[in-house]
Amino acid sequence: MPVDARAEGARRPVVVVLGGGFAGVGAARKLRDAEVDVVLIEAHDYHTFQPLLYQVATDLLETSAAAHPVRDLFREQPNVVVHQATVTGVDLRLREVHLAEMAPLAYDYLVLALGAEVNFFGTEGAAEHAFPMYTLADAVRLKEHVLRRWEAADRDPALVDDGALNVVVVGGGPTGIETVGALAELYRSDFAKDYPALPQDQARLILVEAGPELFAMFKPDIRSYTQRALEKRGVEILLGETVASVGPTRVTLASGAELPAHTLVWGAGLQASPLTASLGLELQRGGRVPVGPELSVEGHPEVFAVGDIAWITDPATDRVLPQLGSVALQAGEHAGENVARLAGGKPTEPFTYHDKGTMATIGRGAAVIQTHRGRTIKGKSASLAWGTVHLALLSTGEDRAKALVDWTWAGFTHERPGRITVRTQEEAD
Amino acid sequence: MPVDARAEGARRPVVVVLGGGFAGVGAARKLRDAEVDVVLIEAHDYHTFQPLLYQVATDLLETSAAAHPVRDLFREQPNVVVHQATVTGVDLRLREVHLAEMAPLAYDYLVLALGAEVNFFGTEGAAEHAFPMYTLADAVRLKEHVLRRWEAADRDPALVDDGALNVVVVGGGPTGIETVGALAELYRSDFAKDYPALPQDQARLILVEAGPELFAMFKPDIRSYTQRALEKRGVEILLGETVASVGPTRVTLASGAELPAHTLVWGAGLQASPLTASLGLELQRGGRVPVGPELSVEGHPEVFAVGDIAWITDPATDRVLPQLGSVALQAGEHAGENVARLAGGKPTEPFTYHDKGTMATIGRGAAVIQTHRGRTIKGKSASLAWGTVHLALLSTGEDRAKALVDWTWAGFTHERPGRITVRTQEEAD
Repeated sequence: MPVDARAEGARRPVVVVLGGGFAGVGAARKLRDAEVDVVLIEAHDYHTFQPLLYQVATDLLETSAAAHPVRDLFREQPNVVVHQATVTGVDLRLREVHLAEMAPLAYDYLVLALGAEVNFFGTEGAAEHAFPMYTLADAVRLKEHVLRRWEAADRDPALVDDGALNVVVVGGGPTGIETVGALAELYRSDFAKDYPALPQDQARLILVEAGPELFAMFKPDIRSYTQRALEKRGVEILLGETVASVGPTRVTLASGAELPAHTLVWGAGLQASPLTASLGLELQRGGRVPVGPELSVEGHPEVFAVGDIAWITDPATDRVLPQLGSVALQAGEHAGENVARLAGGKPTEPFTYHDKGTMATIGRGAAVIQTHRGRTIKGKSASLAWGTVHLALLSTGEDRAKALVDWTWAGFTHERPGRITVRTQEEAD
Repeated sequence: MPVDARAEGARRPVVVVLGGGFAGVGAARKLRDAEVDVVLIEAHDYHTFQPLLYQVATDLLETSAAAHPVRDLFREQPNVVVHQATVTGVDLRLREVHLAEMAPLAYDYLVLALGAEVNFFGTEGAAEHAFPMYTLADAVRLKEHVLRRWEAADRDPALVDDGALNVVVVGGGPTGIETVGALAELYRSDFAKDYPALPQDQARLILVEAGPELFAMFKPDIRSYTQRALEKRGVEILLGETVASVGPTRVTLASGAELPAHTLVWGAGLQASPLTASLGLELQRGGRVPVGPELSVEGHPEVFAVGDIAWITDPATDRVLPQLGSVALQAGEHAGENVARLAGGKPTEPFTYHDKGTMATIGRGAAVIQTHRGRTIKGKSASLAWGTVHLALLSTGEDRAKALVDWTWAGFTHERPGRITVRTQEEAD
């Protein structure tokens, strides 16, 4: 029997929010003043600041600078209860959510914000050997793997020829470019000092992009700047190329070439949380849940889907909105506001995405910005603006202070904070 | 065949330092100006600042604030080479060290600084279920376990009665007291806010000490202050009591009482690294390697043992020096100086330990200090002095800045930095 708060007499509607990312947190926060009880379910005990994951993976930021305890975010919002639990299914007809560790939860309103997972598009060996870059654990895994490969090559330099230090990064979008750019900084500055006996020039960083250009969503001047900036940092760029298969020490390209590399980072695609398959809805590409202009699911005005799990069409352009943090946050907040309207007996309103521009960082002093009006900024001034905006976006003053310390030190001394791997007994290999 | 640098013609002596803790790092640093080549072997890629582990375990400090990349410590010392490797044996006769991942290393001088591991004294179930507090991985494991128990009780409050939130801490010395004191702060302030629905007053913290008093090494006024300060923070203290057996959810005391507790922290004893058994030497209590006044091993003037692995008798008092960071650092430095003397054709000198006093912290605004002259300081002024000294001891400016940020925020806002658990796929449970 599900726990049914609805059985009580004069009771407030129950809003269940699934997911504690940008979308879920945005929705729950906008319900602060609504006469509802919110239950937020998140599989981890932290909210992830995904735009900074590549910095955690390349050791420019502490793990905790890209993550914040979910409970902390709602300490001052008494109508939100948080549980760390895993969603196993959603019954839209009975209006209840099934969880691995708890009794089912009944809801009056549901916000589906479960995010996505990596999509290897069936690439052979990728599930076993590739390193995705979507979760905080992904970032930590990649960092520790790369550090261990350098330590292994330090003990046995013959591993350098075997590709122990080489990294293939798949995907010429923000994830791939920011990751390979930050790896280049890590390799050429820190590792050069940490491992003076190893031949740095034989450590290859290779970026593979299926399309004809990097950063397809940016204007041409940003695209060419990015390519130059990466090449200047020693990154090899393969355009119009894809990966056919991945092994533990070799990457085979579709063109037939075999690259010796013990590390392949996958920044090339997402698919919606597999939970969507259990909804009984007709899904869109990548398993995403299509929603109407008000962000609710067809036939279920009480169910909203937002964030990377959702397929939202922008009415202004008739295009599908990309799986970005800014889209997730704005859509999540709008879904929260619409739930509040429904709970207050008011009609819902359609969602409009406000593009505030896009920015990405390629390396120290090398970032790119494209404003919503199409203006472009590149290089040091973009890098400075990037730092300011991301500091402002971090959730709390404490995170801000620590990210500032890390960034300031990295900027002044060209040193990084952690560069260590902590293995607990369970994961020792 | 071992790699034998000694086979060359006019070559410098090779000093192999085993262990990158206070003792090993101290020894290697003092060899900076010696005409020797130093090879430092450490199983991790980091040096651990052990006095702060309890703060990592209770989430008052970031993991990386209590650890520093070993390679960083020797960037400016070109005669030191660092390898991350595991020592499997030492052949004192052939003068070579055996490693799991590398060819054997031949040495002219050896500094044994491999440290210790926890000693459960055969307590039933302790190896499977107890949480030691000696390594950085121990501290992270304890933190994540406690957080998971609170999340589990949040999902199923019946677990509170089963002891999910209760922690038994074994040992009334610095490790046990600092850990239980910091747990009390974490429980009574942060968790009270994070889990408002859980009955905080039913979350028990129990300190078990076999002797008649806490902090046996301190003066009576500190002992009684400590007991009062802990009791004021809701810690139950059981003196003259020991643990008979440990299960996953129950702790049985020697007196027969059974405590419901899903967590038992072991701060009660150490034994030297098991490597000492392979040396063919007569060992002292806890497997420690006895050394003479100059810190060398009997019959092997080229082999020094320092830190928690060593059994050093203080000639001034005829007492064995305790397994403390300050002893390890001073003895390590002295061993390094003696190796430098031997390599320079000079005679070695005997070691004298300079007791600079002892300090410990019990909770916010509650610390104790006993100076080497026997003066005692308690409470807020001791707490302030503790913070200053530990900040000064941290290795780099960067660590100092970050520890300061963490501590300042914790002091001002009573908030903690991380309070999150990051599970990689391998360790997901």
